[in-house]
Amino acid sequence: MKNVEKYERGYYMPPVKCMKWAEKEYVDHAPAWCSVDLRDGNQALIIPMSLEEKLEFFTKLVEIGFKEIEIGFPAASETEYEFCRTLIEKNMIPDDVTIQVLTQSREHIIKKTFEAIDGAKNAVVHLYNSTSVAQREQVFRKSKEEIIKIATDGAKLCNEYKKHAKGNIVFEYSPESFTGTEPEFARDICNAVIDIWQPAPDNKVIINLPVTVEMSMPHVYAQQVEYMCDTLHNRENVIVSLHPHNDRGCAVADCEMGLLAGADRIEGTCFGNGERTGNADIVTIALNMYTHGIDPKLDFSDMPALVELYERVTRMKVYDRSPYSGALVFAAFSGSHQDAIAKGMNWRKEKSCDKWTVPYLPIDPHDVGREYDGDVIRINSQSGKGGIGFILQNQFGYDLPKKMREDFGYKVKAVSDHKHKELMPDEVYKIFKDEYLNKCAPVDIPEAHYVQKQNGTICAAITASVNGVTDDHTAEGNGRLDAVANAIKQALKFDFTVETYTEHALERKSTSEAVSYVGISCGDKMYWGVGRHSDIIVSSIKGLVSAINNAFADKK
Amino acid sequence: MKNVEKYERGYYMPPVKCMKWAEKEYVDHAPAWCSVDLRDGNQALIIPMSLEEKLEFFTKLVEIGFKEIEIGFPAASETEYEFCRTLIEKNMIPDDVTIQVLTQSREHIIKKTFEAIDGAKNAVVHLYNSTSVAQREQVFRKSKEEIIKIATDGAKLCNEYKKHAKGNIVFEYSPESFTGTEPEFARDICNAVIDIWQPAPDNKVIINLPVTVEMSMPHVYAQQVEYMCDTLHNRENVIVSLHPHNDRGCAVADCEMGLLAGADRIEGTCFGNGERTGNADIVTIALNMYTHGIDPKLDFSDMPALVELYERVTRMKVYDRSPYSGALVFAAFSGSHQDAIAKGMNWRKEKSCDKWTVPYLPIDPHDVGREYDGDVIRINSQSGKGGIGFILQNQFGYDLPKKMREDFGYKVKAVSDHKHKELMPDEVYKIFKDEYLNKCAPVDIPEAHYVQKQNGTICAAITASVNGVTDDHTAEGNGRLDAVANAIKQALKFDFTVETYTEHALERKSTSEAVSYVGISCGDKMYWGVGRHSDIIVSSIKGLVSAINNAFADKK
Repeated sequence: MKNVEKYERGYYMPPVKCMKWAEKEYVDHAPAWCSVDLRDGNQALIIPMSLEEKLEFFTKLVEIGFKEIEIGFPAASETEYEFCRTLIEKNMIPDDVTIQVLTQSREHIIKKTFEAIDGAKNAVVHLYNSTSVAQREQVFRKSKEEIIKIATDGAKLCNEYKKHAKGNIVFEYSPESFTGTEPEFARDICNAVIDIWQPAPDNKVIINLPVTVEMSMPHVYAQQVEYMCDTLHNRENVIVSLHPHNDRGCAVADCEMGLLAGADRIEGTCFGNGERTGNADIVTIALNMYTHGIDPKLDFSDMPALVELYERVTRMKVYDRSPYSGALVFAAFSGSHQDAIAKGMNWRKEKSCDKWTVPYLPIDPHDVGREYDGDVIRINSQSGKGGIGFILQNQFGYDLPKKMREDFGYKVKAVSDHKHKELMPDEVYKIFKDEYLNKCAPVDIPEAHYVQKQNGTICAAITASVNGVTDDHTAEGNGRLDAVANAIKQALKFDFTVETYTEHALERKSTSEAVSYVGISCGDKMYWGVGRHSDIIVSSIKGLVSAINNAFADKK
Repeated sequence: MKNVEKYERGYYMPPVKCMKWAEKEYVDHAPAWCSVDLRDGNQALIIPMSLEEKLEFFTKLVEIGFKEIEIGFPAASETEYEFCRTLIEKNMIPDDVTIQVLTQSREHIIKKTFEAIDGAKNAVVHLYNSTSVAQREQVFRKSKEEIIKIATDGAKLCNEYKKHAKGNIVFEYSPESFTGTEPEFARDICNAVIDIWQPAPDNKVIINLPVTVEMSMPHVYAQQVEYMCDTLHNRENVIVSLHPHNDRGCAVADCEMGLLAGADRIEGTCFGNGERTGNADIVTIALNMYTHGIDPKLDFSDMPALVELYERVTRMKVYDRSPYSGALVFAAFSGSHQDAIAKGMNWRKEKSCDKWTVPYLPIDPHDVGREYDGDVIRINSQSGKGGIGFILQNQFGYDLPKKMREDFGYKVKAVSDHKHKELMPDEVYKIFKDEYLNKCAPVDIPEAHYVQKQNGTICAAITASVNGVTDDHTAEGNGRLDAVANAIKQALKFDFTVETYTEHALERKSTSEAVSYVGISCGDKMYWGVGRHSDIIVSSIKGLVSAINNAFADKK
């Protein structure tokens, strides 16, 4: 690809090896979560949320279990100021929830920020300035010392304003564009701020390490985070926070590895909304923990409701393949996947297994408010007998014999291929009915009577109707079905062999009917029919007649 | 979250520590890429692609530079068989491109697979069977030995059929559901297959390690991959391939870390299409390398054309925040980001910098066929003076003085906030014209004549029109603008001070006009006006009069 020489790696490695994190395998406890949906997320929307929309989203975030919510940059916009005041004045912030507000390191902005949060019981004042080589050089045109002074001047002002503030105020500092900053400089500027804020056990300080732009592989970020954790002053009173963006598609890995590297807190959004490629998706990080058996302390059990709200207020669309939340993430169209899922579900029932281990489904769809029917096994031309059989069994109660599933599978796939569309369960069922169930034309057996002989055989006397012309026949057999089959052979002058017969009860509302599956061979081909009737004998004869009608139609 | 006890980690760590990969920082050369868009991608669509759609997509994949393309599972579906035959019979496969076909380990399927590729110059026959604990137990209900036998039986059959095949055939084996398989068992089954296939320097074999379902953090997968690389027989003649899915949102990280761990090849799709959460997104992996200065050997320089084709044939939508390709991934709505981008772009010009280091833009949008105008700086109520000024300068040629940018910024944000919508550049320009440019009501100066005095001062004789009533006035000043200002003060009996005046040429088509920015103070407020005219003197007077009209309107 041309112009490749225009690029080089823009990040900086720590001066020492920082690989302790890699000894750990997985995130073993929930971090502190901070939703930035209403600030970073909102700032990235084509149409920012209205006051009402923000209030609704805030309420939902509280409901999910977020205890820290960044609500805006109140000094930068009247709308955000008004939102902050509304939350406080309408008493919408529960006592155990902390609002967070962003501020630049400029006196009139810090002043207005403290005005905005006046009356809040708990608030984080989040101070930032940009520290990367590129920003120092191109945007601020300042030396390292001057950049540190921006931060420390702001930190001192925060101390001043806090003296007069009511409420419980926690400070957060972000060296913005951390990933383009030399780790030693990031350490120095953070330590300078920490030294001014003087954190203590009852007055902790948050140091947030943003992946403002994702510039490295996630294990490099983890090393940077570990370096910071190892070198920050007063570490035991510092909450190390992460705020990754997704420019390289690795924001989730950044968060998870950063947590292994010692971080305590994650700033992110639902579904990864946010500037450009978005923030880290908290839904994914939380449910990644959940599927490892770790309680994330956030409740995403009604995902469809969250998706609905999110799409409405942000006017964004949750991506169809977004982990745990997308429309298609549980869907299995392909035959082998459907087969394995169907078998896994049955195995789970059979063994009363208490762990979720169904193949191809990393989470039980029910645990995030999704359905098996409709969400999981979906039918198109890629589908197979396993999935198609599963639909028929799960939604309509028909448990087809294995060989018949194959026959039915081909028929369904052919319809989907021909129509060039997905088939809904009702359409699958319609094909089943049309192809197999209680078929009585051109051949029908309106009447059959049975007599048990001394030798144990059965004699059947039937009325056979072919294209409406009726005739009576009598024949013997090993059982009722065999006797009727023999009588039909006579009546039609048509040869076939009954190869297989199975039946089960079909529970429909209060009544129970018998369903019979009959497979006959005729020449070198198999034909299938299904009978359904409250009388098991009638049901079996109807199955046989259906199979014969299929053979008849084919032979013509 | 309830039901958390239902879950536990379903992956297995290698029996020895495998962390050599973590010594590396980044992927330093392009792997072999294999697109599975037409197989895994297609299999996950609600409506699979038609033959024509597949042919078009195949042609585009070749154009991008893919040398290996998995085209389907020809023995499983008539459509896929036909697609394979069409590619071969219509000679659509370039000599340096290898098609790949998937097959299960069953004789009639392997037989049909070889029939499907008959006549292809280069083909990979990709054999798989599922090896995870869950699949062995729930789906196949077979022992480890029996599962190995499935693989080795298939491998032997492949050897047999290859003897009679024309063309250059390479074998690939996937222990499907690798991530739920004990690494030692994965090693054993792969080695059993390798021993049968007997790879050699001129007859290499591909061993593919699928993340069929993503079950662990990516650094765990990297350890599994490194373990396999360390323990596979005949490693020098084995191409280790990766095929990650994205259930935990980490497929890209899986690929990148797996490459550090020794893998040679990536199977993935464009934009991460594929089963459920999708495959690894090759666009992201390739451009992640590119932005590190490594040539990925794939050409995504016309991303909009690829997006258009992809969306049309798959009926999927590329997610707005998909790295490098989404509609919003270069967009900056927020003021501080816009300001930094504008400054970074100007710095780049100023320094003739040959490296791309513009803040907030990890890649030059031009390198993937995107535009600066429209794609990058976009205006809504979150925007700031930097971005709004940038639009006016870049698209309309007006370089506003810094103080005036602030004034204009507030006006534009207010309109966007009020209309609750994004403003297009033309709308921004319209606000500029309406608010500042050549305003001549109620005050106008239809005529002005100048005389230079002996002492160097200028005497201006003007005709002033206020609401259409005209009057003549004469006054002196240090320059023409000053003299006219003094004459206007007399005429209007209105006091103000000219605080600032700047001008530049505006190139419009063949002609050049002068643009003048005039800021006046009146009481404690500033008012701005802009004049544009081919005569620089007239332009400055028009700027002054525009500012006076703004002040006039406000004072009333």
